[in-house]
Amino acid sequence: MKRKVKIGLIGMGTVGDKVLDLMCRNRSRLERKVGAGFDIAFVCDKNRSALRKIPGNCKARRTTNWKKVVNDPSVDIVVEVIGGHNPAKQIVMRSLNNSKHVVTANKAILSRDWEEIFTLAGRKQRLIYFEASVLSGVPVIQSLNEGLESSNISSISGIFNGTCNYILTKMTREGIDFKVALKDAQKAGLAEPDPRLDIEGDDTVHKLAILSSITWNAHVKPDRIYCEGINNLSRIDVKFAREEFGHRVKLLGVARWNDGELELYVRPCLVPDSHPFAWVNDENNAVMLDGDACGRMMFQGKGAGGYPAASAVVSDIMYLSRQVATGVAGKIPYVDYSPDNKIQYMDSSDFESCYYLRFTAVDKPGVLAKISSILGKHRVSIAGVYQKGPFGKLKKGVPILMFTHRVREGSVRDAMEEIDRLKIIVRNSILMKVEN
Amino acid sequence: MKRKVKIGLIGMGTVGDKVLDLMCRNRSRLERKVGAGFDIAFVCDKNRSALRKIPGNCKARRTTNWKKVVNDPSVDIVVEVIGGHNPAKQIVMRSLNNSKHVVTANKAILSRDWEEIFTLAGRKQRLIYFEASVLSGVPVIQSLNEGLESSNISSISGIFNGTCNYILTKMTREGIDFKVALKDAQKAGLAEPDPRLDIEGDDTVHKLAILSSITWNAHVKPDRIYCEGINNLSRIDVKFAREEFGHRVKLLGVARWNDGELELYVRPCLVPDSHPFAWVNDENNAVMLDGDACGRMMFQGKGAGGYPAASAVVSDIMYLSRQVATGVAGKIPYVDYSPDNKIQYMDSSDFESCYYLRFTAVDKPGVLAKISSILGKHRVSIAGVYQKGPFGKLKKGVPILMFTHRVREGSVRDAMEEIDRLKIIVRNSILMKVEN
Repeated sequence: MKRKVKIGLIGMGTVGDKVLDLMCRNRSRLERKVGAGFDIAFVCDKNRSALRKIPGNCKARRTTNWKKVVNDPSVDIVVEVIGGHNPAKQIVMRSLNNSKHVVTANKAILSRDWEEIFTLAGRKQRLIYFEASVLSGVPVIQSLNEGLESSNISSISGIFNGTCNYILTKMTREGIDFKVALKDAQKAGLAEPDPRLDIEGDDTVHKLAILSSITWNAHVKPDRIYCEGINNLSRIDVKFAREEFGHRVKLLGVARWNDGELELYVRPCLVPDSHPFAWVNDENNAVMLDGDACGRMMFQGKGAGGYPAASAVVSDIMYLSRQVATGVAGKIPYVDYSPDNKIQYMDSSDFESCYYLRFTAVDKPGVLAKISSILGKHRVSIAGVYQKGPFGKLKKGVPILMFTHRVREGSVRDAMEEIDRLKIIVRNSILMKVEN
Repeated sequence: MKRKVKIGLIGMGTVGDKVLDLMCRNRSRLERKVGAGFDIAFVCDKNRSALRKIPGNCKARRTTNWKKVVNDPSVDIVVEVIGGHNPAKQIVMRSLNNSKHVVTANKAILSRDWEEIFTLAGRKQRLIYFEASVLSGVPVIQSLNEGLESSNISSISGIFNGTCNYILTKMTREGIDFKVALKDAQKAGLAEPDPRLDIEGDDTVHKLAILSSITWNAHVKPDRIYCEGINNLSRIDVKFAREEFGHRVKLLGVARWNDGELELYVRPCLVPDSHPFAWVNDENNAVMLDGDACGRMMFQGKGAGGYPAASAVVSDIMYLSRQVATGVAGKIPYVDYSPDNKIQYMDSSDFESCYYLRFTAVDKPGVLAKISSILGKHRVSIAGVYQKGPFGKLKKGVPILMFTHRVREGSVRDAMEEIDRLKIIVRNSILMKVEN
């Protein structure tokens, strides 16, 4: 039994300093659970000033050069919490190459380079833990990967981005525009100055790709996930959805196994008030899993923040330390990645669902007849229509709202395209998926 | 590396046969994740007829004598899924004594004999996994024990009993009496012919004791948990709570760390519609955890059924098998039990909360004045009063409903006792906790 596990921590940002704090504060309890001592051998940050946040009683070596950490033969576990692509990717790859185990919270590199990273990890018989990458402190990765391993998971859906959920909650409650809600989120520290990664859906795509890759033992590629952000969402639709149809708009990430094909999307969806996601508000996150044996379950919690992420990073360090201490780390891979498994991606035009449609037309008789006849031609069956006079800020035209029955998305899009060419239509129509 | 892990399965009831099914059906995937093969060496049930459910291609030895299983030197892991106290307890103890690891779903023996079981397990350096004992297929025990180990958990609260939640949901939706709802649950197969273990709260007590014992590294004893079941609940209060105050009645189990004392109770509580528990309905279960680093999180899912429980049992078998295969099982205990940790139990009269009160009084002037003056004397401050004429099946007297501000439970009980001695009071008053 190894007496001390040596850890190199790279990144002293919002997560790194909390990792250090939790490890120092709870040391005796954590060491008892690991069955061995641990030693924070290095703390690294490219900014010397960040290193001043290290408590005085922490005996770690301070460095601004990450290579010193990953090249030091005594380090067992490298903790990468700097985020972004570079040098995070190099840190992970070099660490594995140097036969170190890795803990990371980096969803961008994991989702993009899953294949490369896990192939190397497999070859070097080293482990990577990444609980903080999805739902932060909520142990959904461990659950999916271990606690539910006896179930065949048929679908994963979730609210994975706290910034978007905060913005959508604001828009719903206060009836404000996207841009106003975004500014508010930025003021509250819940959106970055450059918010694109969140609001355009990429962050949700990364998280969905990670959970899907674990579940279906293959690299589910982010660029194969259908993606729409919330940045083009109109407050009108949020308002109509809630007031006329009792639905709320949520940015969902969904992966669904359909007869060997994987249906994957990230997009604003309408969920009915009876759906548990309708009650996941503000910056909270949630994920719902369906499995043949385990049934349906949901996890919910804080999706962001230094401490929740650090909580996940520290438990990863503990898992790894236990295995390092007993000398078995790497004998069995954490993630069951098989290069031979290839994913069949479903084309978005083959998605089948109910949809919300908003047409904006001139206020003349016969408009509805024209629209519905085109929909009928494309076999889009209407479940409900709602029409009333000029509304709020709709300066020209009247809104015509529809809920469809279950239908192929391709058919709806074809119909929409044809409808949008009509002279009676004064602006582009809106399409949103309805999630039941 | 051990080539095959040998498993002895005891109990072929609703869980056991599903365990066998999942293990046979997913064998290749499970073996890949374990990094070793497994061998179901024995299947045991006291009824010979139950053994006939074993699929023909399963080569396990069949026996009606559990001693053969636990005494067989080749067995690594004993899976006890017979439930009840005896011989389940003997099976667990004998297995540990014979240096076998154990998987069990048995909340009754774990909660009562935690100290004895984990002391023996520690002494013999053997492991016990018990994921199925709480929230069935939802991996809350692994999460609490490992995924959240870097957080200090300050409270655990949950809806742990599917039968009670089903009955309460029925009473709320349909306005029916407890007895009618219970009969309905029995018809639906969601309540036992003898439902006492569920409806009197004991099952919830067992589960709360297990989660608390894990969290605070000590034996939290079931008989020290304040317990009220749902069997005396009146539909009147369920109705008033919902219609007059926008609250729902749920049987909650709660453990809260209060300055070194543990507040523990199982009782019907009023939760506001804004609380996530208000939306956990039918036979579903949920648990909410608060931790200093991880923040607040909630897990929700099926709390019962053969497959969800079997899913948890099989993942426990997988964890254990991984450790058995690499030769480290038992080097580090799964549960951090320390005999030196003693729990300080808070007395129920020291609980502090808001409360719902229902008095039933004669319909005369001055009644409210008398009641409120006694409440005032005991420093029970009233947040809201609701009074109207004779109602539904209240044959005598008029109901007077109150919500209190936060107050010591002892004071409310003292006041109630004094009020119930008044001649104007025609039946015993009702007290329920309000959970915010």
